[in-house]
Amino acid sequence: MVTDNLNETSYNNHDHHTRHPRLRLGVFGFGCVGQGLYHVLHETQGVKAEIKKICVKTKNKQRPLAEDLFTFNKEEILNNPDIDVVVELIDDAAAAFEIVKAALQNGKSVVTANKKMLAEHLEEIYQLQKKYNKAVLYEGAVCGSIPILRNLEEYYDNDLLNSIEGIFNGSTNFILTKVFEEKKNYLDALKQAQDLGFAESDPSLDVKGFDPKYKLVIAMAHTFGVFVTPEEVINIGIDKISDLDLKFARENNYTIKLIARAFKEGGKVFGFVAPQFIEATNPLASVRNEFNAVQVQGAFAEKQLFIGKGAGSYPTGSAVLSDISALSYDYAYEYKKRHQLSGLVYSNDLLVEAFVSFDADHAIKIQDFEQFESGYSALGKQYMAGLVKLEKLKEWSQTPGVGIILAPNAKFVSASKQTEKLQLA
Amino acid sequence: MVTDNLNETSYNNHDHHTRHPRLRLGVFGFGCVGQGLYHVLHETQGVKAEIKKICVKTKNKQRPLAEDLFTFNKEEILNNPDIDVVVELIDDAAAAFEIVKAALQNGKSVVTANKKMLAEHLEEIYQLQKKYNKAVLYEGAVCGSIPILRNLEEYYDNDLLNSIEGIFNGSTNFILTKVFEEKKNYLDALKQAQDLGFAESDPSLDVKGFDPKYKLVIAMAHTFGVFVTPEEVINIGIDKISDLDLKFARENNYTIKLIARAFKEGGKVFGFVAPQFIEATNPLASVRNEFNAVQVQGAFAEKQLFIGKGAGSYPTGSAVLSDISALSYDYAYEYKKRHQLSGLVYSNDLLVEAFVSFDADHAIKIQDFEQFESGYSALGKQYMAGLVKLEKLKEWSQTPGVGIILAPNAKFVSASKQTEKLQLA
Repeated sequence: MVTDNLNETSYNNHDHHTRHPRLRLGVFGFGCVGQGLYHVLHETQGVKAEIKKICVKTKNKQRPLAEDLFTFNKEEILNNPDIDVVVELIDDAAAAFEIVKAALQNGKSVVTANKKMLAEHLEEIYQLQKKYNKAVLYEGAVCGSIPILRNLEEYYDNDLLNSIEGIFNGSTNFILTKVFEEKKNYLDALKQAQDLGFAESDPSLDVKGFDPKYKLVIAMAHTFGVFVTPEEVINIGIDKISDLDLKFARENNYTIKLIARAFKEGGKVFGFVAPQFIEATNPLASVRNEFNAVQVQGAFAEKQLFIGKGAGSYPTGSAVLSDISALSYDYAYEYKKRHQLSGLVYSNDLLVEAFVSFDADHAIKIQDFEQFESGYSALGKQYMAGLVKLEKLKEWSQTPGVGIILAPNAKFVSASKQTEKLQLA
Repeated sequence: MVTDNLNETSYNNHDHHTRHPRLRLGVFGFGCVGQGLYHVLHETQGVKAEIKKICVKTKNKQRPLAEDLFTFNKEEILNNPDIDVVVELIDDAAAAFEIVKAALQNGKSVVTANKKMLAEHLEEIYQLQKKYNKAVLYEGAVCGSIPILRNLEEYYDNDLLNSIEGIFNGSTNFILTKVFEEKKNYLDALKQAQDLGFAESDPSLDVKGFDPKYKLVIAMAHTFGVFVTPEEVINIGIDKISDLDLKFARENNYTIKLIARAFKEGGKVFGFVAPQFIEATNPLASVRNEFNAVQVQGAFAEKQLFIGKGAGSYPTGSAVLSDISALSYDYAYEYKKRHQLSGLVYSNDLLVEAFVSFDADHAIKIQDFEQFESGYSALGKQYMAGLVKLEKLKEWSQTPGVGIILAPNAKFVSASKQTEKLQLA
């Protein structure tokens, strides 16, 4: 159940010895994560839960479990009074949302790891939880095995959080690691990531930064209490990183990471995804291969960094199982920050310190920068660095031949603040 | 309250909107952490708690708060019916334990950050919580701001944990960072750490590895469910690291970290604290200055690393406040691993891969190693590397002129296993 300031009589019972002696699960999807969950569930004695039914799409496929465990009819789970919890692990975000809605309507709690679905419908899912008094948990959707949502909800409850940032996508981190450490060609590294199952079948979700953006949207709700749609958040991918960028990085002892970040300043929340040069002494530099990292900065706990596997059958299955375990004592996200920090507004009105590379025939000018820092040209490419409007970076990121990488320890300036400064000057 | 398999009727209510509208705190000690707590509590709106009384020892000292908030008589807190929670933040472990006992006896919950007291009395404190049905929380005692105990209890509930290790002491990490990065002299770095408030007034607690050992003892209870006394656990400090060790480390692109670790193998739990050479690519290498790191390895979530400030007024005050917040919804540690992994036995019967340095006049012989790997002499020092019994390392660590540093990615072999192998061979 969802507790809420408006709803003071509901409560979460934290005891899992006396309630729900054995949760009965209906699982949608039996791919990588579903199979991982099945395995993890059978190896642990800590969680009392059993899979009653698994709904799959493809008929005539060899499966490692008894045939009568599977169904092709979703109603056999959604309308099954013997099922308490729906575990949604399918690819299709639209179909997944219909499943979540129907499950809640039918009085079932939900565990899901579908970040796209969650990012697109989070506010609605928040409302549905309140309406039907059932929980939706989704730790596995944000950085796989890293328990970031639970910590944001439970541990940082009383800390004033300023920012959350990190490496939210394992595939691109794998690719960037291979490119840097093994001097691999970009496309070879991508292919290797796909062969190993780290990259989605549609690599643009990873490479263009959509996947980490979905996770950031979810994390922002639990960090700052704001609901933002994915469309509002700007994502710049690693698809236009050039050999010259790599050379520049190596010469300066930098690496490049695809960073998702959100922070608050002066009543506003800013959030975006973009590649960034990272100094060797930055702990994020040592986060390698398919590992993810989340750094939370609070007023008092100061910097906290969580590193763990962001994807994969067992790590994500383990996070899903942890949510199931939490449901056994009626845990639900309270979305506490919504009540504590009401009044924060999401904004893209930000200046960002970035390196912009472009071919000579692109008409990017010094005047396009709010504050120009430096420029040079090499090997037929032009480079310019300085403070640029985030919206301008988005525009450039969609222009072929223009590459964007944020500066190491980049400055971020709230644009309204900048205006004030310029007026004062 | 403490839930327990033996005690199925107790429960934790997880709602903090309806219960304990405002916790009333009695605080013992007003040093670094106490003042941090006071500040943090007054800056946050998330926790409804107020300090009723602060018990201090030293009279005639200027304090920044109203005089009537302070008392010199502990009974004014312990016997005060208007106080719900005792927050114990004094230095003296023996006195702290008396306070904790009296508080529980008088029906008050306790929050403490006193690692020495906890490590020495943990089993008793576990029993006292059951007896008086009141909670003792101590997140601030283990790696300051890092929420490791809460995660071990709540999130890794269903994961099969294999090991926990990391940098559990900020002062020694600060010293080692300065020595490596700024090529500082060892004693200068120690003095700087003390001046900055990172090192205890008795530096041997840090430098000889007692402080991280206390934290390891506490962490072992929540990772593996074993209660171990500090006397049982071997701690080797950084007090005998030589210039030659530093030279060797630099030449091989290693750093040196004081590592606390515990792991399970074949029904046994091993645990110890010792300095270790760490490769540059190891994420622990980038944990600098006063930061701590905890790495948990589970069967499914795989490696998880938590990095954060391990000490200091605000980080520890923030952890203490997080415990107070958890008490507002009657949270208590369940010591779940005690029930899940019963039968694990603590042991020091381990072979450890180490570098041992000694002056020529020490009679350490190749035969002292279970498996000798290499040896050389330089600048009047002898070096030997190989697998050694942990008990032997302890003996050597107490011999003047003998230095011990574990090998990078050191092998650890359960001694009983080794015997089997030798017999088979």
